[in-house]
Amino acid sequence: MIRLTRSYPFSASHRLHAASLSNDVNADLYGKCNNPYGHGHNYVMEVTVAGDVQPRTGRVVDLGKLDQLVRSLVVAPLDHRNLNEDVADFANVVPTTENLVSVIQTRLKNRWPPDFPKLSRIRIFETRKNIFEVQVGA
Amino acid sequence: MIRLTRSYPFSASHRLHAASLSNDVNADLYGKCNNPYGHGHNYVMEVTVAGDVQPRTGRVVDLGKLDQLVRSLVVAPLDHRNLNEDVADFANVVPTTENLVSVIQTRLKNRWPPDFPKLSRIRIFETRKNIFEVQVGA
Amino acid sequence: MIRLTRSYPFSASHRLHAASLSNDVNADLYGKCNNPYGHGHNYVMEVTVAGDVQPRTGRVVDLGKLDQLVRSLVVAPLDHRNLNEDVADFANVVPTTENLVSVIQTRLKNRWPPDFPKLSRIRIFETRKNIFEVQVGA
Amino acid sequence: MIRLTRSYPFSASHRLHAASLSNDVNADLYGKCNNPYGHGHNYVMEVTVAGDVQPRTGRVVDLGKLDQLVRSLVVAPLDHRNLNEDVADFANVVPTTENLVSVIQTRLKNRWPPDFPKLSRIRIFETRKNIFEVQVGA
Amino acid sequence: MIRLTRSYPFSASHRLHAASLSNDVNADLYGKCNNPYGHGHNYVMEVTVAGDVQPRTGRVVDLGKLDQLVRSLVVAPLDHRNLNEDVADFANVVPTTENLVSVIQTRLKNRWPPDFPKLSRIRIFETRKNIFEVQVGA
Amino acid sequence: MIRLTRSYPFSASHRLHAASLSNDVNADLYGKCNNPYGHGHNYVMEVTVAGDVQPRTGRVVDLGKLDQLVRSLVVAPLDHRNLNEDVADFANVVPTTENLVSVIQTRLKNRWPPDFPKLSRIRIFETRKNIFEVQVGA
Repeated sequence: MIRLTRSYPFSASHRLHAASLSNDVNADLYGKCNNPYGHGHNYVMEVTVAGDVQPRTGRVVDLGKLDQLVRSLVVAPLDHRNLNEDVADFANVVPTTENLVSVIQTRLKNRWPPDFPKLSRIRIFETRKNIFEVQVGA
Repeated sequence: MIRLTRSYPFSASHRLHAASLSNDVNADLYGKCNNPYGHGHNYVMEVTVAGDVQPRTGRVVDLGKLDQLVRSLVVAPLDHRNLNEDVADFANVVPTTENLVSVIQTRLKNRWPPDFPKLSRIRIFETRKNIFEVQVGA
Repeated sequence: MIRLTRSYPFSASHRLHAASLSNDVNADLYGKCNNPYGHGHNYVMEVTVAGDVQPRTGRVVDLGKLDQLVRSLVVAPLDHRNLNEDVADFANVVPTTENLVSVIQTRLKNRWPPDFPKLSRIRIFETRKNIFEVQVGA
Repeated sequence: MIRLTRSYPFSASHRLHAASLSNDVNADLYGKCNNPYGHGHNYVMEVTVAGDVQPRTGRVVDLGKLDQLVRSLVVAPLDHRNLNEDVADFANVVPTTENLVSVIQTRLKNRWPPDFPKLSRIRIFETRKNIFEVQVGA
Repeated sequence: MIRLTRSYPFSASHRLHAASLSNDVNADLYGKCNNPYGHGHNYVMEVTVAGDVQPRTGRVVDLGKLDQLVRSLVVAPLDHRNLNEDVADFANVVPTTENLVSVIQTRLKNRWPPDFPKLSRIRIFETRKNIFEVQVGA
Repeated sequence: MIRLTRSYPFSASHRLHAASLSNDVNADLYGKCNNPYGHGHNYVMEVTVAGDVQPRTGRVVDLGKLDQLVRSLVVAPLDHRNLNEDVADFANVVPTTENLVSVIQTRLKNRWPPDFPKLSRIRIFETRKNIFEVQVGA
């Protein structure tokens, strides 16, 4: 079994603010990430799939098809967007990168083609120093 | 003469939109960078100074003093901010990275200590692929 | 148990073309990677070993011996080579990076010294955006 | 469950020399790393924690608290230090990076707050080419 | 005046061999780069333009137009190609990276739009360790 | 004219301490870099040469000869060394990276072969954030 990881950059903005909490608690909890007008990042998302090499092609997955899937489900709706204002998944969810990983996981799993190798891991570099990942499958 | 370059990361958001132009022209001119709620980047700014090595210390500049200057004049007011909404320099200026370089240049030059080595260059990596720089002095 | 990963760059060229398939199917399957005269990459291979720290040396493995093994079995025969033309392992195997990982795994496992820590993982960065790995052992 | 990795750079020097072995054996075993006056590295340490996202905050851990813990227990005592001379943990232990990983693991585990997510992995980049890691928990 | 640098990766293969020299001289001169079936690289090309910021747009150049120009003149004809076999510019020219820089300079200068800011510099990273550049203009 | 930059990493340790100054002044001037037992870095040195492409070879310089020169004059005497204790150039010179650049410049200029292209620039990355350079020639 081979794991193939493919990297997708996108740029977005967000503000960390929980509607259920007071302004003071939000400020204390999120610090400068709670600044009212938001800020942004060059996120880098890695999608890892795991599967056997197909003898006919020598490949685990057709990269063109993987790109098409990930770009339509994740990159197009998030890139150059404000996560709080533009992305319905965050209507009632604080757009921390932990929650961003979960949102992306749901988006991909719901539409993952049955003939694709397994979705194995999603990882997001918020900056070079902060990395978030979820192990999805094998 | 030695050139010393010091790197300062900061994260901010912006929207490219010229108030003097129609919505259609803005959309055509800036594409997805014109999205109404903005987006963001992990900017990396490099500040270069040029001067002789001081025989007493073996240094061109005291890095602690340089950091204090750059952080108070540039990083603190821009980091984790929305350039359009939070930074007065962009009240009537579109926050392209070209203009961001100019704004930072003005901020630094206006307060540059006379006993510092010359400010030589300001460079900003908007992403790994887009780099903007201004040569200030020698 | 400690995992030690050591990185080995090498540059090679390849062409993706399956002899068992028609030219049209090859072109459709591999796109520009099927271009007749090939193209190339700066591959970066990571070899990971896993084992206990030896109390006498404070090390998991002698890095000099690991380098000697990996360089003779993998780097020397692949570096600055055309995988299709120069490397017998690809006489009947399409040199996708998935198959490259498998070829390297076989080369290393067949000659892995019994007194070495376990070979744990082989990972190849084809580019910064495409990463392939196989988990060999613990 | 989400894994969060946070990166901490520090610069230190060391000399690889086992007091229990002769000078000749040390020279043979450690090569140029045995040079009598030592040498140094820009180490980059990654600390990974694993846990559930807290519904109230959308976070796995408060990054400020994690930073405070790691900086006081690891970065402050090691950064800009000579591991052999300045760090008591290496009084009788050769400061290989394998042992450095173990020392850091012990320092963190002994004081890990019970209300923190699990400490999952410690990884050190000695250089870009040499990476050492220990899997601590899930 | 602002300098804007934009980065374009492409993968290609080449063989260093001068038709005017004997096989022995070629082998001596180019070493493993003379291997008969060639090898390859992930080249990264940087194109730098220099000009004034346009007051109307806040930009030095329209990035979309710059990309279109560079991709049609350079990236499309070189990416995933064998420089010796596929690119007519190298019919009688050894495809060293020095000559590659010159070929790209000629391609860009011959078709550089008169209303563009000046072409300032072309730089190619053959690997992370070998960088070639030509200063074209201001 | 083409500029060729070649990168050479080396690891070394140093302590910033001026013998002519009191301990208090040294501590104030150099902060943690004055710690008595020193610390270290993975330095990356770039050597840039500038010259015309030789029509016969398509090259600016023979990389093998450049490597031999730089490795014997700079890398071998500095790599895995303590700059204060092992390198005579620092007997009476504080090993700041500014002075390190000057020492390397002198070492290279004194032995630069007359048939080589001009030595153009020496640049040292002390860390990713601190870069020092001297422009030697054209």
